[in-house]
Amino acid sequence: MRILFIGDIVGKPGRRAVELMVPKLVRERAIDFVIANGENAAGGNGITREITHELLDRGIHVLTMGNHVWDKREIMDFIDSEPRLIRPANYPMGAPGRGWGLFTLPNGKRIAVGNFCGRVFLDNLDCPFYGVGRMLESLHGQTDYVFVDFHAEATSEKVAFGWHLDGRAAAVVGTHTHVQTADERILPGGTAYISDVGMTGPHDSVLGVKKEAILRKFITGLPVRFETATGPLQFCAVIITLGDKGKATKIERVFERFDG
Amino acid sequence: MRILFIGDIVGKPGRRAVELMVPKLVRERAIDFVIANGENAAGGNGITREITHELLDRGIHVLTMGNHVWDKREIMDFIDSEPRLIRPANYPMGAPGRGWGLFTLPNGKRIAVGNFCGRVFLDNLDCPFYGVGRMLESLHGQTDYVFVDFHAEATSEKVAFGWHLDGRAAAVVGTHTHVQTADERILPGGTAYISDVGMTGPHDSVLGVKKEAILRKFITGLPVRFETATGPLQFCAVIITLGDKGKATKIERVFERFDG
Amino acid sequence: MRILFIGDIVGKPGRRAVELMVPKLVRERAIDFVIANGENAAGGNGITREITHELLDRGIHVLTMGNHVWDKREIMDFIDSEPRLIRPANYPMGAPGRGWGLFTLPNGKRIAVGNFCGRVFLDNLDCPFYGVGRMLESLHGQTDYVFVDFHAEATSEKVAFGWHLDGRAAAVVGTHTHVQTADERILPGGTAYISDVGMTGPHDSVLGVKKEAILRKFITGLPVRFETATGPLQFCAVIITLGDKGKATKIERVFERFDG
Amino acid sequence: MRILFIGDIVGKPGRRAVELMVPKLVRERAIDFVIANGENAAGGNGITREITHELLDRGIHVLTMGNHVWDKREIMDFIDSEPRLIRPANYPMGAPGRGWGLFTLPNGKRIAVGNFCGRVFLDNLDCPFYGVGRMLESLHGQTDYVFVDFHAEATSEKVAFGWHLDGRAAAVVGTHTHVQTADERILPGGTAYISDVGMTGPHDSVLGVKKEAILRKFITGLPVRFETATGPLQFCAVIITLGDKGKATKIERVFERFDG
Ligand SMILES: [Fe+2]
Ligand SMILES: [Fe+2]
Ligand SMILES: [Fe+2]
Ligand SMILES: [Fe+2]
Ligand SMILES: [Fe+2]
Ligand SMILES: [Fe+2]
Ligand SMILES: [Fe+2]
Ligand SMILES: [Fe+2]
Repeated sequence: MRILFIGDIVGKPGRRAVELMVPKLVRERAIDFVIANGENAAGGNGITREITHELLDRGIHVLTMGNHVWDKREIMDFIDSEPRLIRPANYPMGAPGRGWGLFTLPNGKRIAVGNFCGRVFLDNLDCPFYGVGRMLESLHGQTDYVFVDFHAEATSEKVAFGWHLDGRAAAVVGTHTHVQTADERILPGGTAYISDVGMTGPHDSVLGVKKEAILRKFITGLPVRFETATGPLQFCAVIITLGDKGKATKIERVFERFDG
Repeated sequence: MRILFIGDIVGKPGRRAVELMVPKLVRERAIDFVIANGENAAGGNGITREITHELLDRGIHVLTMGNHVWDKREIMDFIDSEPRLIRPANYPMGAPGRGWGLFTLPNGKRIAVGNFCGRVFLDNLDCPFYGVGRMLESLHGQTDYVFVDFHAEATSEKVAFGWHLDGRAAAVVGTHTHVQTADERILPGGTAYISDVGMTGPHDSVLGVKKEAILRKFITGLPVRFETATGPLQFCAVIITLGDKGKATKIERVFERFDG
Repeated sequence: MRILFIGDIVGKPGRRAVELMVPKLVRERAIDFVIANGENAAGGNGITREITHELLDRGIHVLTMGNHVWDKREIMDFIDSEPRLIRPANYPMGAPGRGWGLFTLPNGKRIAVGNFCGRVFLDNLDCPFYGVGRMLESLHGQTDYVFVDFHAEATSEKVAFGWHLDGRAAAVVGTHTHVQTADERILPGGTAYISDVGMTGPHDSVLGVKKEAILRKFITGLPVRFETATGPLQFCAVIITLGDKGKATKIERVFERFDG
Repeated sequence: MRILFIGDIVGKPGRRAVELMVPKLVRERAIDFVIANGENAAGGNGITREITHELLDRGIHVLTMGNHVWDKREIMDFIDSEPRLIRPANYPMGAPGRGWGLFTLPNGKRIAVGNFCGRVFLDNLDCPFYGVGRMLESLHGQTDYVFVDFHAEATSEKVAFGWHLDGRAAAVVGTHTHVQTADERILPGGTAYISDVGMTGPHDSVLGVKKEAILRKFITGLPVRFETATGPLQFCAVIITLGDKGKATKIERVFERFDG
């Protein structure tokens, strides 16, 4: 079984990149299951009902989110009725939606997909290290594989989270920085790990946003309007091969640049 | 001309990796000039006079630093007399040492090496975007190539810094996160760019530190003693090929794992 | 000469408190000159042209700002033509508006009013410690008194800024936290100092905002809409008595609660 | 019943201020019970066994702590056996010590004293808003009064915490910023509140530390050695008068300056 996980999809350019790449990869690389981070899918911030359906219709089986999960307020209205949309599990009790879900792979095995936010340089949520332990307990005996999207800023927290789950999850993939890292590996316990899968969207940009706006912000300190960039696209993902006993055997980076 | 730039060298394991890899790479990859980030070279924090000399004796021509520059206080005593040791240029006026220096390549061309710290999630220093402009002005007509180590945390600030210098520097290489990124590229203006070169030191660690300590910190919130990890090594670097008119033509990542 | 300085005026309730209190204080406490922080005067964030005029018409001679200075974008259009509206001086060169201005007191003496933002836990601006030195140099010989509104979060930075200017300014008053501090004093060099003057606006609130919204934010982590609170008002200010040679002789806190 | 709560005691000067002021206040103001924040009691950082005993012998009944609780590592060895030393309750489960304790007032009534850390601009701990709810539940029916030291940086979090407990605690007193605030009040539900009680220690300092060192740090960005300041002392506290049904009827600030 091979899982494709796509890094933060940014706006229309990101969705276009998904449209072009997912069918191709599924076919050429024999992908069995597709997960994607969708926290920036709607114009760079959040996700709408329509875009959720668009992405789920284009071959993505599960969407994970991050700190931008609530940016489009309408998500509050539909997240409870869409089990394929997973939000960070470490929001305080009572938040709408689910922090993890159980899904069935084509071979009949079950895979749990969870999403957690880091806290270093980010929002004050519940402890993700503690929370992921509770997730594993609550899933005990119910799943064959555990897949975690850890949405975090600081490399220390991300790498530590990977070690924390080594041997207990099939994969821990980082998201949020929008820059793909080159540290993909199978940890000694059999967990596929990467610090950040990277961003899927406009290539000549600052994390998906028009570079002129971000530069103006850094140089002048004045407020600017952020807009999703245009031009060539990039598609960032990893392909993870599952093995026996809930482990992974392989993780490969995908970083494609092309015209939209 | 080919420049080897080595990412944050952490402690004795990092220095051992340098000892093993630099002569090999210089020979096999026809390296002409070696630059390395040494902010963690002494036991994980800062650098000493002895270690500065050790690294400069092992084939490194210039050392750059970062937010840990002053961790070993003795640097205050020798940095003014060691022009090959470059500290972040955006410390307020009056700080010891130099923020950039001019060096001669084997072909007689001159290369300026500068070091700047980012400010997002880091210390309050002078603006690096403004500062690097002043560096370029002060170097005007004096150098053939400009090489910048941008030591920063946030990907937004790093990517923006790359675009800021596109066409004006031969290379902008990121350091500090200790995780190599996979976004190396030649920007349209001819500047070699990577968000982070990564860490040179113990492979099975959290950014070079014993993983058990970092995990205990994240899980318990209690203070822990950080120690440089042991075991297998990793060597993270980039090789940049210089072209005409102050530009770069190629950037390749190096990420080697081996036993020390 | 007695200066009244009013802490962050929040929205309509804050402006109502100004309307009620300023004429009364000017009369009863023999105030000669009125300065106020107006960064939250328009609905809690920023200031408009109309509200600037409203406040200047109600007896305020100079308005200072803070990190919310640009929240109402229209300020960009009129700040250059309104010398009585002072924005933080430590925005990078080229920002619209002025960071300090010279005004004439009723007795013919001149007073310079400056505004700086702190950087700890706040935006990355130019160094306020360096900047205020440049302000003093540029004012050399042109003013009788220097008055500084230091808009900052961290008490360490604020108290340090007071000591930095002791003997060089008549007054350093802190703003931004919206909570009045009880540490008003004349420093040994003759500078009137207080860490924070406090907030002028709705009394039963969290810093001027409806408390239910802020509490919901802290408890759930979910986004909420912030609205200026209603109900009883509070008026926070200090009265500073100027002495000879650019010094102050007295600083008194004003903290009035009343129905609007 | 009247409770004296003393703000962060800093080093030897702070302990000297306690020695001079506590007996005097107990006598003159008819104090029945004394609580103090001791997180900086040992040389500015943390507390030792010896200093704990010194303070408890000088008339303090209960010591609360804050983010510096673990700075002197020996606390790990004795905190479990000293029920009068209360550390922030929102450290993850398993931390040494207690987050609250039950004590008996001279009139036989019971008072629970709890300690929580804020999270805004501070460490990533468990949610204090949720935690204090759990404390109240676990104390249900066992105590006559609840007293909370909320050790936090941001005024928004502190004021919100006060409202959160209004009518459920007799007192919520803020600590940590080392600057006394002037917003003491009895909230509508009968809870005595102040955002920060202030610092007990050297008066001419930056939060207790030598001002020259802190200024040098802000101006140069270079590391400095922080030392507790010397010279005149200040004593910051509040006196809270308890009423019926777990409420408070009065809160008065104490801010004394004197030679040691
Ligand atoms: Fe994202
Ligand atoms: Fe994100
Ligand atoms: Fe480093
Ligand atoms: Fe660093
Ligand atoms: Fe404000
Ligand atoms: Fe502000
Ligand atoms: Fe403290
Ligand atoms: Fe503290």
